Amino acid sequence: MFNEQGERAVTTNHIAARLDMSPGNLYYHFRNKQQIIAELFGLYEGQVDAYLRVPEGRALTIEDKAHYLESIFAGLWEYRFLLRDLEHLLACDEALAQRYRIFSRRCVQSGKRIYQGLVDAGILCATRTDPEMLAVNSWLLMTGWVSFLCTTILDSPDQPLTPELLKRGVYQVVAQEQGLLTEAARPAVEAMLKDYFAPLS
Amino acid sequence: MFNEQGERAVTTNHIAARLDMSPGNLYYHFRNKQQIIAELFGLYEGQVDAYLRVPEGRALTIEDKAHYLESIFAGLWEYRFLLRDLEHLLACDEALAQRYRIFSRRCVQSGKRIYQGLVDAGILCATRTDPEMLAVNSWLLMTGWVSFLCTTILDSPDQPLTPELLKRGVYQVVAQEQGLLTEAARPAVEAMLKDYFAPLS
Repeated sequence: MFNEQGERAVTTNHIAARLDMSPGNLYYHFRNKQQIIAELFGLYEGQVDAYLRVPEGRALTIEDKAHYLESIFAGLWEYRFLLRDLEHLLACDEALAQRYRIFSRRCVQSGKRIYQGLVDAGILCATRTDPEMLAVNSWLLMTGWVSFLCTTILDSPDQPLTPELLKRGVYQVVAQEQGLLTEAARPAVEAMLKDYFAPLS
Repeated sequence: MFNEQGERAVTTNHIAARLDMSPGNLYYHFRNKQQIIAELFGLYEGQVDAYLRVPEGRALTIEDKAHYLESIFAGLWEYRFLLRDLEHLLACDEALAQRYRIFSRRCVQSGKRIYQGLVDAGILCATRTDPEMLAVNSWLLMTGWVSFLCTTILDSPDQPLTPELLKRGVYQVVAQEQGLLTEAARPAVEAMLKDYFAPLS
């Protein structure tokens, strides 16, 4: 419901009605909408932490890269309501803001390890790749993409987001590497890029 | 006041008091806070439109590039309250959201012309540079940077933003070109990059 209608438009009464439950019964499980959002944020956090792992004891492969991209896309799509209005959700809930701060820093660190892994695996060129810079930019792109679509690309706030537009966000993340790929990795990564391309208008 | 205390914390009464003016007198000039914000947004819009121009009748130079970067930095710093809470400001004002949509699309188009200009001037490598992708990513980085600092890098929402942290945002924009620079342009652009670097922690 949050994804379809936007978090602001959905009240706990709407949620109770959809669940065929009395508002009092819903209240027994969740004190308020904030607690439901915090619970959903926990699921998002767990999902992102799981996919941002670097395999231990072996080098990263092109298949790992494909898996990272699919996971980014799944997270963007499944939790688009969170990413659309993150600022607002964090401003309403100091505890969530603190939790997000730690999570977001951890994701940048994980991203840095992944980009370093892509250098170590010979996929990205060692001399020109700055893993911290790429991790920060990728995190900004991933967390800002849904809101960019809503504020800039869609013609109105009611127009629904499509999986294609979300895929384009993944394209924007991979395309950062266009000048950094080693010749050995270039054909495979360029093929991936094509899969994620979608026009913006 | 918006930049120092955050827009949410500043009421029209605070503004009137700072101006040594009665709330009624302020109301005579501005119907509400929304109108003050829309006015400030207009100034920001004018500033960004002015600096995103591509010179006519001549190729772009490294000096133009330095000027773009200084202007980006000035805009980030001067209007940081707008960029910190953009989503919230747009959600409160449908007319501003419509205006922002047109402005934001225009900026992406201008960015595309600038990146194409950097290719035409022999600063970026023609075969690997995708001007639209870079324009979109740069716009996301510029508009998302202040909010990234506030939600992730600062230790609390009350900690003030510093010019150094804003400069790092400009670094993140230029650093996208690390793999795309021609050999002729590399030394000058890498020197610029150093000027904008600041550690995140």
